[in-house]
Amino acid sequence: MANPNKDFPLSYFAGKFDCAKSSISEDIKIIKEAIELQEAGIVVTSIGAKGGVKFVPSISDKEANEFLEYAKNRFAEGDRVLGSGFLFTSDILFDPKFAEGAGKIFAKRFAKLDADLVITIETKGIAVAEYTAQYLGLPLAVIRREAKISDGSTVSINYFSGSSDRIQKMSISKRLVKPGSKAIIIDDFVRGGGSISGMCNILAEFQSEALAAGIVLSVDDARHNMVSDFYPLMFLDSTELKNGHCVIKTNIL
Amino acid sequence: MANPNKDFPLSYFAGKFDCAKSSISEDIKIIKEAIELQEAGIVVTSIGAKGGVKFVPSISDKEANEFLEYAKNRFAEGDRVLGSGFLFTSDILFDPKFAEGAGKIFAKRFAKLDADLVITIETKGIAVAEYTAQYLGLPLAVIRREAKISDGSTVSINYFSGSSDRIQKMSISKRLVKPGSKAIIIDDFVRGGGSISGMCNILAEFQSEALAAGIVLSVDDARHNMVSDFYPLMFLDSTELKNGHCVIKTNIL
Repeated sequence: MANPNKDFPLSYFAGKFDCAKSSISEDIKIIKEAIELQEAGIVVTSIGAKGGVKFVPSISDKEANEFLEYAKNRFAEGDRVLGSGFLFTSDILFDPKFAEGAGKIFAKRFAKLDADLVITIETKGIAVAEYTAQYLGLPLAVIRREAKISDGSTVSINYFSGSSDRIQKMSISKRLVKPGSKAIIIDDFVRGGGSISGMCNILAEFQSEALAAGIVLSVDDARHNMVSDFYPLMFLDSTELKNGHCVIKTNIL
Repeated sequence: MANPNKDFPLSYFAGKFDCAKSSISEDIKIIKEAIELQEAGIVVTSIGAKGGVKFVPSISDKEANEFLEYAKNRFAEGDRVLGSGFLFTSDILFDPKFAEGAGKIFAKRFAKLDADLVITIETKGIAVAEYTAQYLGLPLAVIRREAKISDGSTVSINYFSGSSDRIQKMSISKRLVKPGSKAIIIDDFVRGGGSISGMCNILAEFQSEALAAGIVLSVDDARHNMVSDFYPLMFLDSTELKNGHCVIKTNIL
């Protein structure tokens, strides 16, 4: 379960627990039943001499929706509304409990897309993107604002950021995206969608594309026409925010 | 196990599985034995009317040292040495398999320190810091290079970065550190130790202190006198690096 989406041959467990493959096979049936009954994931077994087993994690719809309620309440609690229509979110976004839950929901939503990597732009979406990548069994590529010497050669683009109302730059190491890749974008916040367009454009520089975008908080009902599956966990009411109130609607999985 | 270091009353499980607390209690004994036999962690039960149980995750010394060998080989493989004595590490540092393993080792090393939070500076140490926080059951505070409007009011300091050979700035939201906190620093790379001093100094602005620092890669045998437990997973030979070779020694837990 700690290595989601990875195939293990039965001989791995037979060796680890010093017993026959047939016993492992029976135990796996019990484990499969227990896990699937709880909707914690799916256990996929393949038969034959090279037969193996892998764990595809998931979260039940009930748990997902309970998590979204919990998340909504956390963002709405306390004194998070800053001046000029911003919300303080950094503590929640890096809280492992929150980030892991959000990652699980995105992984469930995007599990069937057959993507090659998860991609995000620094900084506040990184923890959620990391858990999404973990649960999908994919690598994570992190786009930087500024290229660093330790990135090696990079590709950079300029884009218009609605949140900061100015032209911004994003930059990614050429080593992080193989040409022809299919990516899932994860980000913490969408207002005008400029950074999502930017990420799509930077992927295009690698003849690669974004299949989907998972967003933690979308301002109002932001949409995006450059990805076919655009899924925000929550919608934040911008008019209320400007008046100092945090009003959030959850977006049921 | 998905909520490490969190106390659950037995009634939680009795309700969830619709059975008597005494049955739960017996099952927990079996689970405790299995987990502790494998050195995957410790199951702590407290008795009495408010009796509960919590899972403190760990990793066996054997597994930890196998992981360090695996990590060393990943950094040494392929063509990672960049010009001017830098190593390309971003893909490994955000790979969930690597980051989770490193986080588990740091959590084991620092489990008894009774810290209040994990702290890191953006960007490349964030994934490792996130898993460290998860396994310790602590929040993660991320220091930014530049204060953002969504951070609210911030504390900033300037520090000398040996890696970039210039004065740099770090900035943290005042909301992220409570006065009097005890922190564990996590970072991906130490050369001169400037960013660790910076993090200690920024913590001091909150009358808080760093108890320990967990580093993925230390250049040569870097030490740091501002934290009492300074623990790098690996040492990178700077002379070899300048000659285009990646020579790494692991630092056994």
